Amino acid sequence: MTELAAVKAALKTQAVETPSWAYGNSGTRFKVFAQAGVPRDPFEKLDDAAKVHEFTGVAPTVALHIPWDKVEDYAALAEHAKARGVRIGAINSNTFQDDDYRLGSICHPDAAVRKKAVGHLLECVDIMDATGSRDLKLWFADGTNYPGQDDVRSRQDRLAEGLAEVYERLGEGQRMLLEYKLFEPAFYTTDVPDWGTAYAHCLKLGDKAQVVVDTGHHAPGTNIEFIVATLLREGKLGGFDFNSRFYADDDLMVGAADPFQLFRIMYEVVRGGGFTSDVAFMLDQCHNIEAKIPAIIRSVMNVQEATAKALLVDAEALAAAQASGDVLGANAVLMDAYDSDVRPLLREVRQEMGLAPDPMAAYRECGWAEKVVAERVGGQQAGWGA
Amino acid sequence: MTELAAVKAALKTQAVETPSWAYGNSGTRFKVFAQAGVPRDPFEKLDDAAKVHEFTGVAPTVALHIPWDKVEDYAALAEHAKARGVRIGAINSNTFQDDDYRLGSICHPDAAVRKKAVGHLLECVDIMDATGSRDLKLWFADGTNYPGQDDVRSRQDRLAEGLAEVYERLGEGQRMLLEYKLFEPAFYTTDVPDWGTAYAHCLKLGDKAQVVVDTGHHAPGTNIEFIVATLLREGKLGGFDFNSRFYADDDLMVGAADPFQLFRIMYEVVRGGGFTSDVAFMLDQCHNIEAKIPAIIRSVMNVQEATAKALLVDAEALAAAQASGDVLGANAVLMDAYDSDVRPLLREVRQEMGLAPDPMAAYRECGWAEKVVAERVGGQQAGWGA
Amino acid sequence: MTELAAVKAALKTQAVETPSWAYGNSGTRFKVFAQAGVPRDPFEKLDDAAKVHEFTGVAPTVALHIPWDKVEDYAALAEHAKARGVRIGAINSNTFQDDDYRLGSICHPDAAVRKKAVGHLLECVDIMDATGSRDLKLWFADGTNYPGQDDVRSRQDRLAEGLAEVYERLGEGQRMLLEYKLFEPAFYTTDVPDWGTAYAHCLKLGDKAQVVVDTGHHAPGTNIEFIVATLLREGKLGGFDFNSRFYADDDLMVGAADPFQLFRIMYEVVRGGGFTSDVAFMLDQCHNIEAKIPAIIRSVMNVQEATAKALLVDAEALAAAQASGDVLGANAVLMDAYDSDVRPLLREVRQEMGLAPDPMAAYRECGWAEKVVAERVGGQQAGWGA
Amino acid sequence: MTELAAVKAALKTQAVETPSWAYGNSGTRFKVFAQAGVPRDPFEKLDDAAKVHEFTGVAPTVALHIPWDKVEDYAALAEHAKARGVRIGAINSNTFQDDDYRLGSICHPDAAVRKKAVGHLLECVDIMDATGSRDLKLWFADGTNYPGQDDVRSRQDRLAEGLAEVYERLGEGQRMLLEYKLFEPAFYTTDVPDWGTAYAHCLKLGDKAQVVVDTGHHAPGTNIEFIVATLLREGKLGGFDFNSRFYADDDLMVGAADPFQLFRIMYEVVRGGGFTSDVAFMLDQCHNIEAKIPAIIRSVMNVQEATAKALLVDAEALAAAQASGDVLGANAVLMDAYDSDVRPLLREVRQEMGLAPDPMAAYRECGWAEKVVAERVGGQQAGWGA
Repeated sequence: MTELAAVKAALKTQAVETPSWAYGNSGTRFKVFAQAGVPRDPFEKLDDAAKVHEFTGVAPTVALHIPWDKVEDYAALAEHAKARGVRIGAINSNTFQDDDYRLGSICHPDAAVRKKAVGHLLECVDIMDATGSRDLKLWFADGTNYPGQDDVRSRQDRLAEGLAEVYERLGEGQRMLLEYKLFEPAFYTTDVPDWGTAYAHCLKLGDKAQVVVDTGHHAPGTNIEFIVATLLREGKLGGFDFNSRFYADDDLMVGAADPFQLFRIMYEVVRGGGFTSDVAFMLDQCHNIEAKIPAIIRSVMNVQEATAKALLVDAEALAAAQASGDVLGANAVLMDAYDSDVRPLLREVRQEMGLAPDPMAAYRECGWAEKVVAERVGGQQAGWGA
Repeated sequence: MTELAAVKAALKTQAVETPSWAYGNSGTRFKVFAQAGVPRDPFEKLDDAAKVHEFTGVAPTVALHIPWDKVEDYAALAEHAKARGVRIGAINSNTFQDDDYRLGSICHPDAAVRKKAVGHLLECVDIMDATGSRDLKLWFADGTNYPGQDDVRSRQDRLAEGLAEVYERLGEGQRMLLEYKLFEPAFYTTDVPDWGTAYAHCLKLGDKAQVVVDTGHHAPGTNIEFIVATLLREGKLGGFDFNSRFYADDDLMVGAADPFQLFRIMYEVVRGGGFTSDVAFMLDQCHNIEAKIPAIIRSVMNVQEATAKALLVDAEALAAAQASGDVLGANAVLMDAYDSDVRPLLREVRQEMGLAPDPMAAYRECGWAEKVVAERVGGQQAGWGA
Repeated sequence: MTELAAVKAALKTQAVETPSWAYGNSGTRFKVFAQAGVPRDPFEKLDDAAKVHEFTGVAPTVALHIPWDKVEDYAALAEHAKARGVRIGAINSNTFQDDDYRLGSICHPDAAVRKKAVGHLLECVDIMDATGSRDLKLWFADGTNYPGQDDVRSRQDRLAEGLAEVYERLGEGQRMLLEYKLFEPAFYTTDVPDWGTAYAHCLKLGDKAQVVVDTGHHAPGTNIEFIVATLLREGKLGGFDFNSRFYADDDLMVGAADPFQLFRIMYEVVRGGGFTSDVAFMLDQCHNIEAKIPAIIRSVMNVQEATAKALLVDAEALAAAQASGDVLGANAVLMDAYDSDVRPLLREVRQEMGLAPDPMAAYRECGWAEKVVAERVGGQQAGWGA
Repeated sequence: MTELAAVKAALKTQAVETPSWAYGNSGTRFKVFAQAGVPRDPFEKLDDAAKVHEFTGVAPTVALHIPWDKVEDYAALAEHAKARGVRIGAINSNTFQDDDYRLGSICHPDAAVRKKAVGHLLECVDIMDATGSRDLKLWFADGTNYPGQDDVRSRQDRLAEGLAEVYERLGEGQRMLLEYKLFEPAFYTTDVPDWGTAYAHCLKLGDKAQVVVDTGHHAPGTNIEFIVATLLREGKLGGFDFNSRFYADDDLMVGAADPFQLFRIMYEVVRGGGFTSDVAFMLDQCHNIEAKIPAIIRSVMNVQEATAKALLVDAEALAAAQASGDVLGANAVLMDAYDSDVRPLLREVRQEMGLAPDPMAAYRECGWAEKVVAERVGGQQAGWGA
C-alpha cells in the first residue's frame, strides 16, 4: 500500500461521535435562541445525527446525556439508532441540574446529596448496559464560588469515594471517562480542574478509568497537545470532547478558532498511537446562533481535515530533522503538512466510500432541514433544560 | 477637621448603587437555582434594596433593568422607592433577549433590527425622564461567534450611528454610560470589547457620554486601576459595575476574589478625584448560590472597607517616597493602609450615622429574610428571563 | 486585469521591513546563545538583511535600533544599504538600557532623567534626517513593578509632555509610531499598556502620531484583528511589529504560533485599506535558538502567505453571506481562502519577479551562511547589549 | 496553651529559606541594573542572608545555585554560614546556561548533552553531601520554541531516564524536588510545564521525589491553593518557591501582587498539615529595581503575615459553616482572619524571640547597607551570568 493509500485507509476508519445535545437548543446565561426544526425528543436527535453520518460517513455513534435523553425503553432507542445506521455512544451523566446540587453533587458536604449523585451515576451504567454503550463520561460541575465555602481536601476525599463506588459497578468492557474543567459553573475552585487531578484519580481507580480532554476546558496558554502526548504516554487518554474556544469554554465548532492547534493535537494523537486505539473522538459543542446539523457536519469535516494533515506529516523527515537539532527544518516538515490543502484528498476519500464529495452541499440538497422545520411543530424543543 | 474626621466624613457620603436584578434569581447556562423569598416584581426588589440601605446607610439608589423591571407606572415605582428611603438609579437597557437579537442589536446587519434596538434605548430614556434617573447604562451583547460572520468595521459604523441617535435624545443632566466587555455572550468579536473602543466612541459623542468599568470584563492580566486612572485623567470615567472574578465574568461579590485589587482601584479613584465627582459606584453581581440580600450587604461593606483603606493612604509620605525613587518605601506606604483593619473605623462611622455597627447581624436579626420567605408565595420569581 | 492577476500584482508590491537586531544575538533573561557568523556591526546587519530581500523580493527596508546601530556616519550607512539594494527603515529608540532608566525614562519621576530620554528621542529624529527614515518607532519600557511605586497619573502627564516635545521636532513626512505593550520589563503598571492608551496620546498629538501594533504585546484572549480594524477605521494604524507568541512576548517567527490569527489580521488590513496605505509592516522577532537569516526569510514568507490568503477572500460572496445573516456561509467563505494552499501561487509570483521560487532553498544554496561563519571571526557579535 | 499562644508558638518555628541569587544582580532580557554593595561571591551572599535571619529570626537557611555558587571548598562555605547563624539549604541545579543546552539538557535529542546534564545533577548531589543539604531542587529550562522542533513524547522518555539516574544517587534523608513551569525560556512546549507532569514523574520515582510549587509558574487563572491542597493530600508537596506575579514569572516579592492568594495558599498549607511537615518554604525572587536585602526582609515578613492570618482562622467555626452549607458564613470566617491586622501580633512574637519588633527599621539602622557599599568595591558582582 502506498503512503497515500494508507492515509486514505486511515481516514476511512475515522469515527467522530456527535453529542445528542448539540442537535437541541443551547445558549448562554443571557439567552437561548430557539431554532425551528429542532428535535423534541431523543429519537428525533438520533434522526438528525443519522443525517450527519449519512453525509460524512465518519460519525457512526451518538452520545446521550441523562436525563436530557431519558426514555422509557433504551433498547427501543438503540434499535431506533440502528435502523438509521448509527449507534449509541457514550452515556453522559448530569449531576448539576437538580436543586439539590446547588453546592455540589458527588463532592457535596451532605452525604445524602452525594448518595443521590452516585445513584444517578449507577443508573447511567444501567443505561450503558441497556444501550450497549462502552463509555460513561463523567463531568462534574462541582466546586465552590467563594474562598472558605467548603473544604478543598474533604471534597477530594468525597470525590474519590464516589468514583470508587461507580468504578466497582462497571462491567466487562465498560469504561469511566473522567473530564476536567478549569471553571464554570464553579468560579473559585472546581473539584476536577485539570488533567493532573483527573489523572491522579484515574490512576487509583484502575485501568477502566481514563481521562477525557475537552479542548475548551483549560487555562489560557495551556499547551493541550502536550497533555495529549503525556496522557497517551501514560496510557490514560480515554478520549476527547472536541470544540473550540477563543476565551473560555466557548463550545464553538471544533477547528473554528485555532485550526493549527487542532492539527497539532491530531498530530500528537497519531504520533502517540491514539488514532488506532480506544481513544474516543467526541464533539461537545453548542450551536447557539448557527444552524445545528450543518455546524456539526462542518465540525466533523474540520476534524477530518486536521487528521488528514496529521497523517500526511513526513515522519521520517521530521525525525531526521529533530535528531539533528535542525529547528527550522523540523518545523518546516510539520508546517508543510499543515499548509497543504487536504480538501481534494478528502473529497476523493468520500467518493471512494460511496459518498458525495461535499457533505455540506449534499445535506443542503437533501431537503432534511426544510422537512424537519415543517414536521417538527408543537411539542417541547430539546434543550439543556437549565 | 482632623484627618481621621475627614476620612469618616467621606465614608458617610459614600453611595453604592445596588442593581435590582441581583435581588432576583440568577445562574449560569447550566442551571439557575431558585431561592425562596426572592422578589416577584420590581416593587419587591425595591423593598429588598431598601433593606440594604437601611442597614448600610450607603446604598441609596437602585438600578433598574428594562424590560426586567418594566412596569405600567414608573412614577409609582419611583414613589414606592422614595417611601422606602431609596431612589431609582441608572436605567439599564437590554438588547440581547429578544429573538431578533440573535446576530446583534444596534450592530446587527439588518437595519430593521437596529431600528428596534435604538427604539428600545430611546424608550429607556423615556423611563429616565419618568423616574428621574440620571444615567442610561448601555451594555451591548453584540458581537460575532465565528471569523467572517460579519464585518467588524461595518458593525462599528452601525454602533456609532445608533449611539449618536440615542445621545441626541438625552436631556439636560442625563448621561449615557457605555460599558465594555471582552467576551460573552459573543465568542469571537465583541463590538465594544475594551475601554479603548468605549472611549473612542464616547469621545466623538460628547461630554454626556462616559465609560463604565465593569471589574469583571477584562482580559486576564489587565491592570484595571490603570484604566481607572487613565479614564479619570481623560475626564471619561462615568462609573463602575463592581463585582469580582477569578476567571471570566464570574459576577461574584465585589472584593471576594481580590480585595487588594479593589483597594488599588479605590486608591486610584481617590487619587484621581473620582470619589467626590459624578462617578457612579454600582454593583453588578449574581448571587447564584448564596443568599442575595446578605451577599449585597457584604458587597457594600467590602466597597466601604476598600474605600476606607484608600482614604487612609498617607498621601504626603507616598508622594515623598515616589519622588525620591524609594521603591520599597513607596510600596510600604500603600501597603500600610491596606494591611490596616478598618472594620473598627467603619463600625464607628455607622454608629455616628445612627446605624447598627454590624449590618450583617442587624439584617439577620430584623427578620426580613423569614418574612419574605413566608409572604412571597406564588407568582413568578424575578430572574433574568434568559 | 483578472482577479488573480490583481492578487499577484498586490503581492509583488508587498514590503516587509526586517529589524537589524533580529540578525544579531538575542535570548531570554536566562541565557543568550551566541551563533556563529552573526554580524558585528550595523553594516554587516545590512548585508544580511540584503540577502533576505535578495531572495524574497519583498523586504526592501531595514529598521535600525539606536544605540545598538549607532555609527559615526549615517549617510554612509544609508549608502551601504543602497549599494546592497535595501534602504533604512524606521528608527527605533532605546530608553531602557542606561542605568539612569531603572525607574523609567520619559515617565521617570526625576526631570533630569526625562530630559535625557527626550534628548535621545530627538537624536533619533536627527538620525531619521540623516538616513531618510520616515518613521520614529517609540517603545517605552517605562512602568512600575510594585503598587504605589510611582503615581500612575503623573506618569501619564510626563509621557504626554515628552511625546509633545518630540512630536514638535518631526519634519515634513516624518511620523511617530507609538507602540504599546501589556507588560515586561515592567511588572505592575506599564505606561503605554494597551492600544487605547497609545491611541489617546496619538489623538492629542496629531496626524503624524500613529499607533503600532506588536502582535505579541497583548493580554491573553485579546482579539488583535479587532484592534487592527478599529485603528484603521480611526485612521490611526501606523504599522505592525510582527512576531508570534504562545504565552507572552515570545518574539517567535510571525505565523509560527497561530497562522490563522495572522490571516485574520491581514484580512482586516486588506478590508480596511491598510495594505495599500502607509501602514508599515515590520518584523520584531528574536531568533534565540534557530538560524537567524533563514528564520527571517521564513517569517517574510509567512506574512506573504497570510496576505495571499487574505487577498483571495471572495469579498462579494462574503458580503452577501454576512448581509443575509448566514453565519456558517460567511465563515465558510473566509475559511475557503484560509484553507487554500497559496504556496504554488507565491512561487509563481516570485518567478514573475525574477526570483527563485523557493527563497529558503535559494538562500541555502547561495553559500552566504558558510561565508559569514568563515569571515566574521573576531570582534564583538551584535546583540541586545542587555 | 491558649489558642493565641499556639499561634505564636507556631510562628516562632517558621522557617523561610532565602535564595543566594536574590542577593545578587538580576534583571530582564532588556537590562540588568547593577546595585552598589551587591555580593561578589557566595560567602558575601551568605553574609547578607545572615542579616535577613538576624532581623527576622525565621530565615535560617540559604539556598545555593550551582554553578553560580560554585566554590572550591563547600565545607568551608557551610562553616562560613554556620558562623553567621545560618545553614546551607537546597542545592539548585543549572542546566540552562551552557552553550550545549541550546535545545535542552536532560531532554536534549543528543545523548551526549543529556549525559553532561545528568553529570551536573550528580555533582549537585555531591555538593549536598558536602554541605549537608537535604534537598536537590530541579528546574529544567528544557522545552521547544516551535511546533515540530522535537518530539514531545521522546523528551518525556529522556526526562524519566535522567531523573531516575539522579534519584538512584540520592542518599539517606536526601530528596529531589521537581519544579514545574508553564513557559520561559521555552516558548512552545516546556518539558515539565505543570504540576501533573511533575507529579507523574515523582510518583514513579519514589518517596524521595517531591513536587515544588513556584507561585509564579502557572497559567493565568490557575488556582494555586487547589494544587497545594491536592499535593498535600497525595503526600507529594515538597516545597514552595515563593514570589509574586501580575503577568508571568515576574519574580516580585511574595505577597506583593496578591496577598489574599498568599493567605489562601498558607491556609491550605496549615489545613493540610504542611506547616508542620517537611514542606520547604523557599523564596525565589528577583529584586531588579529595589534594594535587595530590604526586599527579602519584606518578603519574609509577608510570608509571616499570611501565615499568621492562616493560623488565626477559626477552624471550628469554619467547619461548622461549611458542613451546614452556609456559603456566606463560611466565607466570612475565612475573611475575618484575612481582614485582621496581624502586624501587632508579629511584633509581639519578635519581641518574645528577642528581636526588634520592626525588622525593616532594625536593618536600616544597623548600617549594613552602607557598610557593604563602602567595602564591596572592585571584583565582579554576583548575578545570573546569563
